Amino acid sequence: MKAALVVLAALLALPAGFAAPVARPNILLIVADDHGTDALGCYGNTVIRTPHLDALAADGTRFTHAFCTTASCSPSRSVLLTGQHGHRNGMYGLQHDMHHFQSFAGVRSLPARLAAAGYRTGRIGKFHVAPESVYAFQTVLSGGAANDPASLGRSPVEMADQSRAFIGENDPRPFFLLFAADDPHRGNIVLPDGRPSFDSFPAPNPFGNRAAGYPGITPVRYRPADVVVPPFLPDTPECRAELAEYYQAVSRLDEGVGRLMRILRETGRLENTLIVYLSDNGIAFPGAKTTLYEPGIRLPLIVRAPGRTRPGAVQPAMVTWADITPTLLDAAGAPVAAGECDGRSFRAGLDGAPLTGWDEVHASHTLHEITMYYPMRAVRTRRHKLIWNIAHGLAFPFALDLAQSPTWVGHRRAGGAIFGRRSVEAFLRRPALELYDLERDPHETVNLADDPAHADLRKELVGRLQAFQAATRDPWLHKWTRE
Amino acid sequence: MKAALVVLAALLALPAGFAAPVARPNILLIVADDHGTDALGCYGNTVIRTPHLDALAADGTRFTHAFCTTASCSPSRSVLLTGQHGHRNGMYGLQHDMHHFQSFAGVRSLPARLAAAGYRTGRIGKFHVAPESVYAFQTVLSGGAANDPASLGRSPVEMADQSRAFIGENDPRPFFLLFAADDPHRGNIVLPDGRPSFDSFPAPNPFGNRAAGYPGITPVRYRPADVVVPPFLPDTPECRAELAEYYQAVSRLDEGVGRLMRILRETGRLENTLIVYLSDNGIAFPGAKTTLYEPGIRLPLIVRAPGRTRPGAVQPAMVTWADITPTLLDAAGAPVAAGECDGRSFRAGLDGAPLTGWDEVHASHTLHEITMYYPMRAVRTRRHKLIWNIAHGLAFPFALDLAQSPTWVGHRRAGGAIFGRRSVEAFLRRPALELYDLERDPHETVNLADDPAHADLRKELVGRLQAFQAATRDPWLHKWTRE
Repeated sequence: MKAALVVLAALLALPAGFAAPVARPNILLIVADDHGTDALGCYGNTVIRTPHLDALAADGTRFTHAFCTTASCSPSRSVLLTGQHGHRNGMYGLQHDMHHFQSFAGVRSLPARLAAAGYRTGRIGKFHVAPESVYAFQTVLSGGAANDPASLGRSPVEMADQSRAFIGENDPRPFFLLFAADDPHRGNIVLPDGRPSFDSFPAPNPFGNRAAGYPGITPVRYRPADVVVPPFLPDTPECRAELAEYYQAVSRLDEGVGRLMRILRETGRLENTLIVYLSDNGIAFPGAKTTLYEPGIRLPLIVRAPGRTRPGAVQPAMVTWADITPTLLDAAGAPVAAGECDGRSFRAGLDGAPLTGWDEVHASHTLHEITMYYPMRAVRTRRHKLIWNIAHGLAFPFALDLAQSPTWVGHRRAGGAIFGRRSVEAFLRRPALELYDLERDPHETVNLADDPAHADLRKELVGRLQAFQAATRDPWLHKWTRE
Repeated sequence: MKAALVVLAALLALPAGFAAPVARPNILLIVADDHGTDALGCYGNTVIRTPHLDALAADGTRFTHAFCTTASCSPSRSVLLTGQHGHRNGMYGLQHDMHHFQSFAGVRSLPARLAAAGYRTGRIGKFHVAPESVYAFQTVLSGGAANDPASLGRSPVEMADQSRAFIGENDPRPFFLLFAADDPHRGNIVLPDGRPSFDSFPAPNPFGNRAAGYPGITPVRYRPADVVVPPFLPDTPECRAELAEYYQAVSRLDEGVGRLMRILRETGRLENTLIVYLSDNGIAFPGAKTTLYEPGIRLPLIVRAPGRTRPGAVQPAMVTWADITPTLLDAAGAPVAAGECDGRSFRAGLDGAPLTGWDEVHASHTLHEITMYYPMRAVRTRRHKLIWNIAHGLAFPFALDLAQSPTWVGHRRAGGAIFGRRSVEAFLRRPALELYDLERDPHETVNLADDPAHADLRKELVGRLQAFQAATRDPWLHKWTRE
């Protein structure tokens, strides 16, 4: 039924949305690292300078309800590149070091499918998924080790310059380029003994900012007094100092996007390239990254589609990163068969055309670091969100970069009981079910799961969540009954 | 200090223990699947018939204090084959299906090291570790898919026969053969629709026993009334019926061992082959497998060393499966460098010679199935055991084969509050620390962790456990403080 509606919507949208569609366009997928909607001009922040991303939105489509399905780097990227949730593709947690999660050998990824469809494929910057055989790109412009202070992913203008030859190559095949920056992730400092560390307290984490700067970048610096502290964070000197560093990293990334646009223009690729900008998950502060709360999962998504006829469109359809692979394959003329992906194509809405039947999304988080087992499943409608904390008997685990963040350390040392709008106790100790009315309670602090007035809603959402789990072959489904 | 003592012990033992040692002997490592000490004649069971294993012990050395370090198939085998704990080699849980854990690409395994030392290497039967590149054997006599009702691993005489050519090969190099049976693991039944299932209730699980039998095997059948119900299991009709099936599977495996011995004799390899019999973990009943209680980790270990001079020796040294790789490499004349393995060589005690400084072992369990996160770390001395349940906020998770076992299902349906010697509540809900006096309380039911009279002991054992974790680079070490 839903699928039929989507097809119908796609057919209805075609005349307006694809006045001059480009068959098999080039695809440029730009993935930011830990960039929330809080720090983008086109999403309402009046302090930060992101002129190039704002221009992209002004010339394309800005999505207001785009969600990752897990706010953890590797799993989220695996969802982006397979169209399957982490619990189905096998990437249950981080890829690097002792965590070493990876997808199943039989999974078919976006780059592999595009290559099979006649695209030439390349990647530059952060990778953070495995195995290489599943996520095979024909051209690897840079290796992309995770959290390496010397990573090319911190130098987005350089990344763009190093992508120029690939983009401009004289080849009849369309290209797919995964352009994945390390910005604006928290950055390691280098200790006197040479080891990297996130622990910079009391100095703010540098977020990759460094005195030597980066080639082609004119740093945009921010005063802590000027930043906008989002509601889920404490308005403390440490937090403001860190947000200022974070902003600078975002502006650096924005310059890289600007350079990329110039290269597309100069190589004559701008009008036949589908450009997508998004982030793997929300910002690297407690309350966002690794959670399924809004700051963790509701993310920027900006698309510039070839042949667009509605520049500056705003797209309110609720989409997730599980929909990215089906959408891009659809745009490439190589749609996936039913059941292969958990997501579905929203190609008909890329240009901002209204979509019907896009009012519910699902999320699935299992681990981040190997020691951070905290599986959560969620269903979110326009108005409500239900989160199932499967391991609610455990304290909510802290990622190393968040545990060592001066924002958190300073807050703990000051003995603060409230962090942003939520009590520290509520953040660390969660019930099995959380149910929020996002209209009345946008910061998700009033849990309605045990409110008799919401019993029917809870029951309905639990049913939808279980249906989602069954449809996506979630190994954790049995936890509703076994144990 | 300890190391020095070991070297000293080795030197002292040499004249007696290795009267005619064989340099670079062949190595035959026989690994049973879920075989506890409860079901072996030579370990005191007067009902079960295991003549060939008993003969091996009578002609070799029987270890009374041998322990796996995690009572889960894949992780335990990874420890056996690397000398490193699962938390260090990366095999945190099961290898097959959606669990798909694997060791780090850089780990050096026993077969790889023996091949480098000039051995020819082969394996037959259950494998259950990954990646293949780490656990590379030159010759794969059978694939060994896990829990496959049609596995060759259920047919140990056939396995032995198929090993004959490899064993007898006219090759100047010594051989290393990993002979890994599926017996006496619980067996899948095949449902009418063809799917395998552990759920046979109310009939007992077949433990691989089948009406058609297996080539070369004369089934030894047991009457439920005759089996010995170990203290950790309930004396119920379901349990007795299952133990009878289990016994039959053990006797089948014993026949395979008998055939192997005959082949060694017939090919002239018996006197220059180091034979090791052990099991990956304890029996597949609740209270044993997946726990760190004695029935889960204290296991059979029978060794027949070339040149032995003390047939029928009993070796009380406390050894673990982390010691197997260093020991076998030592015997092969290719000892590992300090720090490469977590275990150490007990070669000097293979013949039963007394060993000094072998009075403490450590265990590390993290997951079994991917949904069964329950990290535990333990230190066990001659008299005491301390278990740290890192995720004690969670209910102890049940493996599918145990949850569906008629023994457990029947017990739950009858509403029994005590399972064996332990309350079901205590089994499912565990405190952070468990401390047992194994001398006074061999069934581990009286937790002394909060007993003021044992506060000093607890402190001392916690210190030793932490030292073990630090020495073996345990990612979970930080859980003592972070969170």
